[in-house]
Amino acid sequence: MSAGARTPTLGDVAALAGVTVPTVSKVLNARSDVSPATRERVLAALQRTGYAKPPRGRRGTTAAAGARTQPGLVDLVLGSVEGSWGNRVLGGVERAAAELGHDVVVTLADPDTADGRSWVDRLLARGSTGAVLALVDASAQQRARLADGGVPVVLLDPRSEPGPGVASVGATNWAGGRAAGEHLVALGHRDIGVVAGPPQQVYSTARVDGLRSALTEAGLVLAPERVRSGDWTSEGGQRAAAELLGSRPAPTAVFACSDRMALGVYAEAAARGLRIPEDLAVVGFDDLPEARWLVPTLTTVRQPVREMGAVALRTLLRLRAGGAPETTRLELATSLVVRASAPAVPRPEVK
Amino acid sequence: MSAGARTPTLGDVAALAGVTVPTVSKVLNARSDVSPATRERVLAALQRTGYAKPPRGRRGTTAAAGARTQPGLVDLVLGSVEGSWGNRVLGGVERAAAELGHDVVVTLADPDTADGRSWVDRLLARGSTGAVLALVDASAQQRARLADGGVPVVLLDPRSEPGPGVASVGATNWAGGRAAGEHLVALGHRDIGVVAGPPQQVYSTARVDGLRSALTEAGLVLAPERVRSGDWTSEGGQRAAAELLGSRPAPTAVFACSDRMALGVYAEAAARGLRIPEDLAVVGFDDLPEARWLVPTLTTVRQPVREMGAVALRTLLRLRAGGAPETTRLELATSLVVRASAPAVPRPEVK
Repeated sequence: MSAGARTPTLGDVAALAGVTVPTVSKVLNARSDVSPATRERVLAALQRTGYAKPPRGRRGTTAAAGARTQPGLVDLVLGSVEGSWGNRVLGGVERAAAELGHDVVVTLADPDTADGRSWVDRLLARGSTGAVLALVDASAQQRARLADGGVPVVLLDPRSEPGPGVASVGATNWAGGRAAGEHLVALGHRDIGVVAGPPQQVYSTARVDGLRSALTEAGLVLAPERVRSGDWTSEGGQRAAAELLGSRPAPTAVFACSDRMALGVYAEAAARGLRIPEDLAVVGFDDLPEARWLVPTLTTVRQPVREMGAVALRTLLRLRAGGAPETTRLELATSLVVRASAPAVPRPEVK
Repeated sequence: MSAGARTPTLGDVAALAGVTVPTVSKVLNARSDVSPATRERVLAALQRTGYAKPPRGRRGTTAAAGARTQPGLVDLVLGSVEGSWGNRVLGGVERAAAELGHDVVVTLADPDTADGRSWVDRLLARGSTGAVLALVDASAQQRARLADGGVPVVLLDPRSEPGPGVASVGATNWAGGRAAGEHLVALGHRDIGVVAGPPQQVYSTARVDGLRSALTEAGLVLAPERVRSGDWTSEGGQRAAAELLGSRPAPTAVFACSDRMALGVYAEAAARGLRIPEDLAVVGFDDLPEARWLVPTLTTVRQPVREMGAVALRTLLRLRAGGAPETTRLELATSLVVRASAPAVPRPEVK
């Protein structure tokens, strides 16, 4: 158990694992030149000692930064708890933290509390020793305040490009959009509509660009009016779908940049009496647990949200332990999951 | 900001609010004999001072109970992060905690970490000062260990009846099941199937009993073979629906004890070519965010999950502050949300 007694050092961890301090350091820095067996031993020792090194950043420069959070705690700030995305991130972060002997304090980014304290105020007041910011729209000023308070951060699916020196974790959004496009083109679709996220949100832009690249390669053009912005909600997805499906001619397929927006596409198709996939093929993005329970089941691009959470947590602990400060952008692989809304063969009913 | 300095006392809170200590006590105990204006002032003062009183339980009797968690932290243990239920609980708990100057440590109950530590071990090792256990199957032994460690708990939707002296928060499950039954009977259904949760889980049993009571009142009988157990998953819901819809005659309506299981009922109806609601009416329980985006939209019994989380958190802080230790079972109201899967009039297409 990690509580009580003095704070463990790298030396304690090395002694317990029966390795040298540089080896422990390698494991903390996720270096590949450590054997799996040694790595396991070191991870177990890190866990047993509850080792955590304070960050290298400046400390205590804000008035609020008083007593620091217990070493075994780490922060997760969630920008949204709508739908099950936040849940899966939490699952990944919490499991990875537990395996390394840490507990997770969860803070919602919005709205501020009644007395006007923001999530940044709350983290600084508590003396957080590090935070994963998931789908949080952190401004440069907010990130600077955290840096001044000595709070290292890792961004998970940041809405805009993080600046240099900021670690971030995401999915291969461009490759996912491209896979969706290749699939629809292979099914024979030549006119594809897109329900995008809000303009300027990088993970939406990357998905749309990926789709466009697949069309371009097939000699097709994605006309600007075929891309409509939603706001990630099902309502927004339905509004965007209504614009696409109301045009003449209407597209024969829609790529929705999130499964929640794809739900809105389903609703709009039903309202117009369009059958999926016979009259309209639909591909989503995310692979929510509900996706395979929709009627028809939803073809979608899976992003490994739990794994993204786990990687973000491990990256944070590495930073906190004084690990490599180089700019890091980690993208985990997406994969196309083919189901009934855009099945593997163009017209399954015509055998 | 609550961090740093000495721990605030009831007297500090009273002084700041301009009231007496007994008045602060009344607010902490959620007594009704305090004016709304005074209550607001006291809540603001509690928040500003970050007041939190240690629990009255025995302390430090387990070897693991060392340094205690910072006073501003409170625990939320989640039994499941599947779907969005856990998210909504988290939203309610976190917001209520933030308003009272507390942060929330979230722990998943399953599975144990690789070194065999359970969530109980983790809370005790950290010296938790109190926990909301949401959908956690805590055994009497686990609860006893927490009590010995001085960790007060509030159960949210416990799977079995909590013993005497244990505070719990839930929804009016029986009344919700009854509302579902009354609605289906009013629509003219005489043969209703039930997709229940696992046997012996009290919140499922209460929902089924509520439905049965509505049928009995209408002179109808709920035959034992009309009640099939699912396991709260969509897969389980589909299996149970297959049993019900495969019988001859088949029921004309199905009440699923959760929306996730209702998704399975939709899938089974589609597989059998049954139209909802024309051939089969469906009523769920929960009102997941997705419920109004299904095709057709799902009639369901809404439970106020966020509010349940907030009430559980406030109850916990009251216990932790030494508030009334009497057995408390709080049930928040459910309400029927009528949508297209069991619409307000029997056959909407026949005008």
